[in-house]
Amino acid sequence: MQVLVPYDVQEPKTRLSAVFDANQRQAFSRVMLDDVLRSLHKAGHDPIVLATAAIDCESSVIIDERPLTVAVNGEIDARDPPTGVVMADLGLVTAGALNRLFETPGDVVIAPGVGGGTNALVVRESAFQVDYHGLSFRDHCAAARQKGYEVSVVDSFRLAMDVDEPDNILEVLLHGEGCAREWLTNSGASVDQTGDEPTLSFSEELE
Amino acid sequence: MQVLVPYDVQEPKTRLSAVFDANQRQAFSRVMLDDVLRSLHKAGHDPIVLATAAIDCESSVIIDERPLTVAVNGEIDARDPPTGVVMADLGLVTAGALNRLFETPGDVVIAPGVGGGTNALVVRESAFQVDYHGLSFRDHCAAARQKGYEVSVVDSFRLAMDVDEPDNILEVLLHGEGCAREWLTNSGASVDQTGDEPTLSFSEELE
Repeated sequence: MQVLVPYDVQEPKTRLSAVFDANQRQAFSRVMLDDVLRSLHKAGHDPIVLATAAIDCESSVIIDERPLTVAVNGEIDARDPPTGVVMADLGLVTAGALNRLFETPGDVVIAPGVGGGTNALVVRESAFQVDYHGLSFRDHCAAARQKGYEVSVVDSFRLAMDVDEPDNILEVLLHGEGCAREWLTNSGASVDQTGDEPTLSFSEELE
Repeated sequence: MQVLVPYDVQEPKTRLSAVFDANQRQAFSRVMLDDVLRSLHKAGHDPIVLATAAIDCESSVIIDERPLTVAVNGEIDARDPPTGVVMADLGLVTAGALNRLFETPGDVVIAPGVGGGTNALVVRESAFQVDYHGLSFRDHCAAARQKGYEVSVVDSFRLAMDVDEPDNILEVLLHGEGCAREWLTNSGASVDQTGDEPTLSFSEELE
């Protein structure tokens, strides 16, 4: 399946600015993108990076400066279904989790994100249109059903956990199986278990 | 399978005190417990509430005042394997998610929780011992492997999302399929989408 992976080249992961500077956020978002692309390849699919600007990448890249929703709908319209759409910031992604998504029957298959978003989609009816925003999961389900499409929801922690907030980094350290976890460890991030609840900690030499 | 559901009768869900008073926390934790028990029944399993004090409940109840870890290990020891252990605060639980857990092969099958905990377990080797604490997922995997047991991890958002913090309530409102969602709605909780990100809101008459 052709799978779009939208990627913001310029200002990725602004909500991580409490823990990473702009260069680090760029590097970290890039290793997460590469993990997603590698997992898609491993799952036997064909990733296409839908980037806001040129990037150096082994996968196919389409440059589209328009907002996320418009750019994705343009690509869904332009292709024969099915088309996949997988977010670039899934730090826990594995080929196995993606395979469960792609193998799930349904006209529209959705993996929700923590906080109400849509982290991954399979669109088997090209008249379906995305509309990415905070509560897009609920609205994508309703929009698909309104068109009479069968909607399936994939129950995956690995696909639900997009990395937006510092708390999400803890999950990558605990469960990540790709380069994002390695990048975090090399950047001095670790899990601190001195209190009741595990928290994110950074080694001093990097602060 | 016999499935233990540990339940703290006296002081449940203290971290929800920012949004619910003690009576509400008790009521909410009880509807979540009932959702878990109902889903286990529906999945064809036999739930046993492992409660810190007497409760009125249609399922079997064992009263054990000892700390969680000691009480669960006592019950695992006392039974023929397999034994399941499912937390009582899984507000997104469904019979389908539980079936994926119980149908996964492995000597020890673990569904991690957000934040590093262990939300659900299948123990097929009764020499395995639990040790519940903040990072118990990682330690349970290591302890099982050290004994030479095959460990399987279940990738489920519904099982990963235990309801500890106000943010988790948003997920129950969005994805819950049981009485916990209904209880929240009746208590005036809703999802507010006026800002960039959805937030939890409560109707004024209840404040």
